Amino acid sequence: MITKNQIKLIKSLRLKKNRIQSGFFIAEGEKIIDELLESKLEVVNIFSSSEKYNISDYYIPISSSQLKQISNLKTPNKVLGLFKVPKNLKIDLNSNIIALEEINDPGNLGTIIRLCDWFGIKNIICSTNSVDCYNPKVIQASMGSICRINISYMDFHKLLDSENYRTVAADLNGQNLRDFTFSDNQIIFFGSESNGLSKKLSSQIDHKITIQRFNDNVESLNLATSVGIILSEFKNQTTGK
Amino acid sequence: MITKNQIKLIKSLRLKKNRIQSGFFIAEGEKIIDELLESKLEVVNIFSSSEKYNISDYYIPISSSQLKQISNLKTPNKVLGLFKVPKNLKIDLNSNIIALEEINDPGNLGTIIRLCDWFGIKNIICSTNSVDCYNPKVIQASMGSICRINISYMDFHKLLDSENYRTVAADLNGQNLRDFTFSDNQIIFFGSESNGLSKKLSSQIDHKITIQRFNDNVESLNLATSVGIILSEFKNQTTGK
Repeated sequence: MITKNQIKLIKSLRLKKNRIQSGFFIAEGEKIIDELLESKLEVVNIFSSSEKYNISDYYIPISSSQLKQISNLKTPNKVLGLFKVPKNLKIDLNSNIIALEEINDPGNLGTIIRLCDWFGIKNIICSTNSVDCYNPKVIQASMGSICRINISYMDFHKLLDSENYRTVAADLNGQNLRDFTFSDNQIIFFGSESNGLSKKLSSQIDHKITIQRFNDNVESLNLATSVGIILSEFKNQTTGK
Repeated sequence: MITKNQIKLIKSLRLKKNRIQSGFFIAEGEKIIDELLESKLEVVNIFSSSEKYNISDYYIPISSSQLKQISNLKTPNKVLGLFKVPKNLKIDLNSNIIALEEINDPGNLGTIIRLCDWFGIKNIICSTNSVDCYNPKVIQASMGSICRINISYMDFHKLLDSENYRTVAADLNGQNLRDFTFSDNQIIFFGSESNGLSKKLSSQIDHKITIQRFNDNVESLNLATSVGIILSEFKNQTTGK
């Protein structure tokens, strides 16, 4: 049975400071939980109304009304899992990397994680003022891809000052994406949803690329959509597929 | 000053049946309102705490706390507008069209409207069981593009039984998008977020296309992202840009 302390802990994990302090995060729904259970992530508890998860000590049976009490979803889906946040993963910066500056929307970050997974991109770096990738909404939008992608938070200015990487950034006034030649490895930067790239970061980037616009009345594209279009072109150029 | 009846009306417009019954919808935020005011849409009232909108009879001054009372946003943004739902627009089905079967997520539909606007696609058709495009969340996610795109709801089976259109659909088991040749005009179909294309509709489609996947662990791509990647390829093929 679920204890009062567990209910209190799980509810507290909606806030980043409590995830950091405890080292735990939560995920919900059969599809995502099944993927996370198959991954290298360390599971603490699985709270479920389904006997399907009654296969290990971590299983704690729970009624539908109790699940509703701890869930972040409008329609709770049978299972909620408590996992340990993995240690900040070492990322090989000389590989192909998606870099997100001040990304704010958890749905966008989750969608981008799923996109990177689809396109075989293993690494995402976020500026330190970005939304936390263990935010429950990020986990839900990533649809289980969170366990296959390395995500690290860092100071982008320090990073680019310290070493010479090939850097590319999505920008409204760059070279047409279709005319740009990607190499196998580079860091591809994207600015925040509301403000785009900061001036300081922009000045540190080698190449700016733009998704061709066919209507000047539209100011911008959705961030996750832009990442998808650019990744699709990158993979096509470097693999021929 | 805003009246009690106006408050009641505006709150009621969160539900589709009330939008249909009254023929009104609402939009919020300076950017979107400014775009809608410049469009052909018929404005009924603008409720705002900013004198900026005090330029016509439709303006009704409102305090921040009153705005909070009628707003659908967590952080209301100065202005809420009441508009008339335009008559169902005649769509030229022999142009280039995005067709959405049973799209459920209002954020996805709004993002797709914005995407079509960016890529210069003027027409969207939705199956009758799709989310309503005057849902407040669709309006917000479309970022003002709603006023530049024709959206119509119809029975797809009847449509395809009645006449011979060139039809293409995004599918997990189709021809690689990059090997497919688009023509200037076709109807490009996308299935619902959770179930993809229905079997019946799938059997009525000429060509299936697939966005190349580079990791078999991932089940699907986000719907709006798929639309973006396919539209980008379509425009590149047909315009060379």
